[in-house]
Amino acid sequence: MEPINVFEYEALAQAKMDAAHWHYIQGGSDDEVTLRANRAAFERIRLRPRVLVDVSANALDMQTSVLGTLVGMPILIAPTGLHCLAHPDGECATAQAAGKAGTLMTASTVSTRTLEEIAQAASGPLWFQLYVYPSLLFAEKLVHRAEEAGYRAIVLTVDLPMLGNREKDRRNNVTIPPPPFREANFDDVEKVGQEWVSLTWKSLSWLRSITRLPILLKGILTAEDAQLAIEHGMDGIIVSNHGGRQLDTALASIEALPEIVEAVAGRCEVYFDGGIRRGTDILKALALGARAVLVGRPILWGLAVDGAEGAYHVLEMLRKELELAMALSGRPTLKSIDRTLVKI
Amino acid sequence: MEPINVFEYEALAQAKMDAAHWHYIQGGSDDEVTLRANRAAFERIRLRPRVLVDVSANALDMQTSVLGTLVGMPILIAPTGLHCLAHPDGECATAQAAGKAGTLMTASTVSTRTLEEIAQAASGPLWFQLYVYPSLLFAEKLVHRAEEAGYRAIVLTVDLPMLGNREKDRRNNVTIPPPPFREANFDDVEKVGQEWVSLTWKSLSWLRSITRLPILLKGILTAEDAQLAIEHGMDGIIVSNHGGRQLDTALASIEALPEIVEAVAGRCEVYFDGGIRRGTDILKALALGARAVLVGRPILWGLAVDGAEGAYHVLEMLRKELELAMALSGRPTLKSIDRTLVKI
Amino acid sequence: MEPINVFEYEALAQAKMDAAHWHYIQGGSDDEVTLRANRAAFERIRLRPRVLVDVSANALDMQTSVLGTLVGMPILIAPTGLHCLAHPDGECATAQAAGKAGTLMTASTVSTRTLEEIAQAASGPLWFQLYVYPSLLFAEKLVHRAEEAGYRAIVLTVDLPMLGNREKDRRNNVTIPPPPFREANFDDVEKVGQEWVSLTWKSLSWLRSITRLPILLKGILTAEDAQLAIEHGMDGIIVSNHGGRQLDTALASIEALPEIVEAVAGRCEVYFDGGIRRGTDILKALALGARAVLVGRPILWGLAVDGAEGAYHVLEMLRKELELAMALSGRPTLKSIDRTLVKI
Amino acid sequence: MEPINVFEYEALAQAKMDAAHWHYIQGGSDDEVTLRANRAAFERIRLRPRVLVDVSANALDMQTSVLGTLVGMPILIAPTGLHCLAHPDGECATAQAAGKAGTLMTASTVSTRTLEEIAQAASGPLWFQLYVYPSLLFAEKLVHRAEEAGYRAIVLTVDLPMLGNREKDRRNNVTIPPPPFREANFDDVEKVGQEWVSLTWKSLSWLRSITRLPILLKGILTAEDAQLAIEHGMDGIIVSNHGGRQLDTALASIEALPEIVEAVAGRCEVYFDGGIRRGTDILKALALGARAVLVGRPILWGLAVDGAEGAYHVLEMLRKELELAMALSGRPTLKSIDRTLVKI
Repeated sequence: MEPINVFEYEALAQAKMDAAHWHYIQGGSDDEVTLRANRAAFERIRLRPRVLVDVSANALDMQTSVLGTLVGMPILIAPTGLHCLAHPDGECATAQAAGKAGTLMTASTVSTRTLEEIAQAASGPLWFQLYVYPSLLFAEKLVHRAEEAGYRAIVLTVDLPMLGNREKDRRNNVTIPPPPFREANFDDVEKVGQEWVSLTWKSLSWLRSITRLPILLKGILTAEDAQLAIEHGMDGIIVSNHGGRQLDTALASIEALPEIVEAVAGRCEVYFDGGIRRGTDILKALALGARAVLVGRPILWGLAVDGAEGAYHVLEMLRKELELAMALSGRPTLKSIDRTLVKI
Repeated sequence: MEPINVFEYEALAQAKMDAAHWHYIQGGSDDEVTLRANRAAFERIRLRPRVLVDVSANALDMQTSVLGTLVGMPILIAPTGLHCLAHPDGECATAQAAGKAGTLMTASTVSTRTLEEIAQAASGPLWFQLYVYPSLLFAEKLVHRAEEAGYRAIVLTVDLPMLGNREKDRRNNVTIPPPPFREANFDDVEKVGQEWVSLTWKSLSWLRSITRLPILLKGILTAEDAQLAIEHGMDGIIVSNHGGRQLDTALASIEALPEIVEAVAGRCEVYFDGGIRRGTDILKALALGARAVLVGRPILWGLAVDGAEGAYHVLEMLRKELELAMALSGRPTLKSIDRTLVKI
Repeated sequence: MEPINVFEYEALAQAKMDAAHWHYIQGGSDDEVTLRANRAAFERIRLRPRVLVDVSANALDMQTSVLGTLVGMPILIAPTGLHCLAHPDGECATAQAAGKAGTLMTASTVSTRTLEEIAQAASGPLWFQLYVYPSLLFAEKLVHRAEEAGYRAIVLTVDLPMLGNREKDRRNNVTIPPPPFREANFDDVEKVGQEWVSLTWKSLSWLRSITRLPILLKGILTAEDAQLAIEHGMDGIIVSNHGGRQLDTALASIEALPEIVEAVAGRCEVYFDGGIRRGTDILKALALGARAVLVGRPILWGLAVDGAEGAYHVLEMLRKELELAMALSGRPTLKSIDRTLVKI
Repeated sequence: MEPINVFEYEALAQAKMDAAHWHYIQGGSDDEVTLRANRAAFERIRLRPRVLVDVSANALDMQTSVLGTLVGMPILIAPTGLHCLAHPDGECATAQAAGKAGTLMTASTVSTRTLEEIAQAASGPLWFQLYVYPSLLFAEKLVHRAEEAGYRAIVLTVDLPMLGNREKDRRNNVTIPPPPFREANFDDVEKVGQEWVSLTWKSLSWLRSITRLPILLKGILTAEDAQLAIEHGMDGIIVSNHGGRQLDTALASIEALPEIVEAVAGRCEVYFDGGIRRGTDILKALALGARAVLVGRPILWGLAVDGAEGAYHVLEMLRKELELAMALSGRPTLKSIDRTLVKI
């Protein structure tokens, strides 16, 4: 029985994975209020479909560019760690899935394959997600390795000055990464505990000084910080609450999106991440101003079920669902998707 | 034990029908959010009953006209497909029920009896629901056949440029129509897959050019499209989300009704379809500006339980419930039902 | 184990009563949306308690007058039918309970004891609830009998032009009254079915012409009708939805109260009925402008459990709960209870 | 398995304690609507985290002063009665836990150790909670004993003119205190029932006249009373609904906080108590204007599980959770926590 939606992949993945690893992937922080809110907020938003618009195959078009890179659809792969927990091929399989689906993958600093291995496996464009960890110097090396390997942007995660309180992992005594998995990018580094380097707005000039790649900030949830991101010359923002894994009871991502889009007012690209499970979720995020969405856990579910093929199928299902949602809402092109499509 | 409300018919019908056919009738698209919202929205609306109004049998009056045709009550039969799934007599039984109840039936393009058979069986007025499928030419033939057979209006469905994602049918491997049933109107046509002809606002002049019958658009959910319908000279609008079977998380029909009625401002007739199960639901739709409501699934439940007699009984129950609701709310006539009756 | 709140009486009464009679008492109409809303609306309203007010025994005072009759508390007995279903002593027991509790009982037209028997049993003041049924002439006789027997006001029920759709009774084949019970006031009348005489605003002049007693209208749910009641010279209004037994999805009584109090603006007395189960419910109704509340089902539960003593105990529990709620909210007197006490 | 959050302490404490004593601690009044609302209101409030702020160990600072007394964190111990129900060491253990955690304990009038014993056991600052009971004279003695023993403020409870209706205790036939426990401060007094002396705003001048200690009013829920507290020269207010144990359906404490903070406008210190279970709850109360929060039941759960060590651990967990919440929300200092952090 082939899965026909993302939720069915979720159930199959759970059945296949080690329970502790599963909870590592699924869990949120504290009482998981924000984790649930990410979904509940989408279900509350209503779509206002238009009719009698030409939505024939010829008219439908979801190609776009993300920081100048063409992608076949506004659905990107979010950075998530430790893909080998889901499948032995790990991030290399994910990269193959992204390329086959005609989209972009964001590789995580804490991947179980090196960024170079991922680049080699990839047939599509890549962004590199950066944790500044365990030192500025090492982070600089990572950025240069990413440049060298052809990554097209640096996604700086800004919502993890400390690790969120993920109680399932504490209960399961999960160490990150759990043996025998390794954070491959750190093979030649001695890590110092679980500490991240403390980043501030001033750190951005350091980052800008060491790379010519565009920089996105991932983890912005307020208009105030969106404004600061622009003042600091950032190229993009990813609205995100880290999948409900950092500050519990923080805003659902989709609740935060409107005020950020309004504050940005087109001055940089705004992306969205948090709770995407259906094509209509993507449509809502686009209608509220996101240029594209990033998908996290569902990719891991696909990987767990069937490696690269599973991850690809998840992307394909979402693409088809988005296509159908665009057709049924009378919005055949990305440009035609606007704020009037949603009733919050 | 005779059923005493629509919900009891639902339970009895489920017990009688083939499970896959049952799910075909009952299901919505994706996560069925809109399907549930159609009901939940009705339960949230409160009635503000008036008292000491003459609501005696003499005073009560629910006769009305729909596009100039007199009907005994503002409760019409919505177009739904494949009535033979519910009962061997199919749409002919439904037509008999409608006539006996003094109301109008809308026959579907995808019926299991030909439109001519339905017309022959009918003792009341008929509308013809049109899918433009598989070609403009064939649709034109259908329209002319409908005119010939005495149908009084064309109900063009505009919310099905593609088929919604009905996962229950996919899981049940239901083909539409499931053998041995046939879409009778297509007996002499070779169909090309499940494709509909792509309709746009421009298509309406084609439709207008091939028939003198009044035209209604079924599937409008926004004020913007209501305005366009009027600009294109349409005679009526049916506010509908296709029973929650097309775009999931679209507005509940009753949520969309007020803005449409306001936009139309009396310039064409506005009908309502979506979630009607009680006389008070009908009363709310009328209070929010619908001229009449159309009922879909409950008719099929009646058919499944007891053929024409069952469908008739469902209509009678709804009529009696509406009559009681009009009496208990102090609104003995359709004219006395206005916006002040409801608190949204 | 003596019950310590109204809900415990409810459970005990159910255990004691015949199931069909129980459902007759408990049931609402249709889907019982309004029945549930009557309770849910109370739970949503928040109290804003004041502190450091003298609420000592000396300061606390809940005596009031209702249409000029002194009562020991603003908690009256609502008219409900057929008390003998709950206890063989029927309405006579209820009247004894009311008198012992220092309050007023409203006797129903459809009681199982004659209004004269009730008056004889009573030690406190009485109002008479009137159904105009089966004829104006008989109703006039009832009013004169009530006057003769010392009743102090006529409570005309205006929300029952037809009987609501109580499906439990239909399922249980309950006839009203179920044998061997009789509607005692009708002993010498031949009743004609379940028809009530159709009342209109004009009927009020007839009623006014046949009695010098004050008249209250029971069943008002809108500001518009409250205004009409005043224009027709009524002495009081009872805001009520007939315990959720008439028009389903009508406003919860407590939702309707504010607009009615505002429209009345002190020009007649406003009473409240619908969902009272706790002292804090009473406090909320008083804060929103009711002069007193009427309690229905809980009295029947008390009767069922322990006859007059049970009904008295229910009233006493409510009195004590109200007293405690007044003390804990810093409102020792009825005059000190105002709109600022509640946050809707 | 060591508990890792407050809820786990709750479960362990229930397993250890006598059921009637457990319900005494846990229960609310009437239907426990306010008890539940205290938690539900926190879950509804959303946090708006800021990023790229220096939240390194050096930058984080949660020291503050409460009425001039330095404490290590804005988390104080609320006054609760009868700690010996939870652990034989009773309030002395609590005092040790508070001192070890670097914070302040509020000792209750109805403690199971004398205020002098508590003071002797304490290594940190203390406030004394006052019930004026059973006489003014005795209360005056208590105040003087508290002054003598080094308590730094008097917390006058103003929301208990009568005891709330705690039905679990009535069902369990709990007497307060249950034998063999004693209200130690009353060892040489003959108590007269469960009556408290009736306090009014005028009583405050009496209290002011007998002590030079600062006075806080505990149990304020409205802006009106906050204004009166300031006019009567009070030094602080504790916004509280007595843990949902007094007036049921009263405002959740966190719902009341904003209007009080606005009314006070900095003219006295405002504290908060009611439903704190997570660091993010504390953060929300601080963002809405509380100077510090007081924690009640969780301390008793800690006591029940492991005496002083358990209570200390509860405080430490909350401190760490607050620290993490401050870091993850980009608010490293108490001063940086403001109204923009929350979306109500």
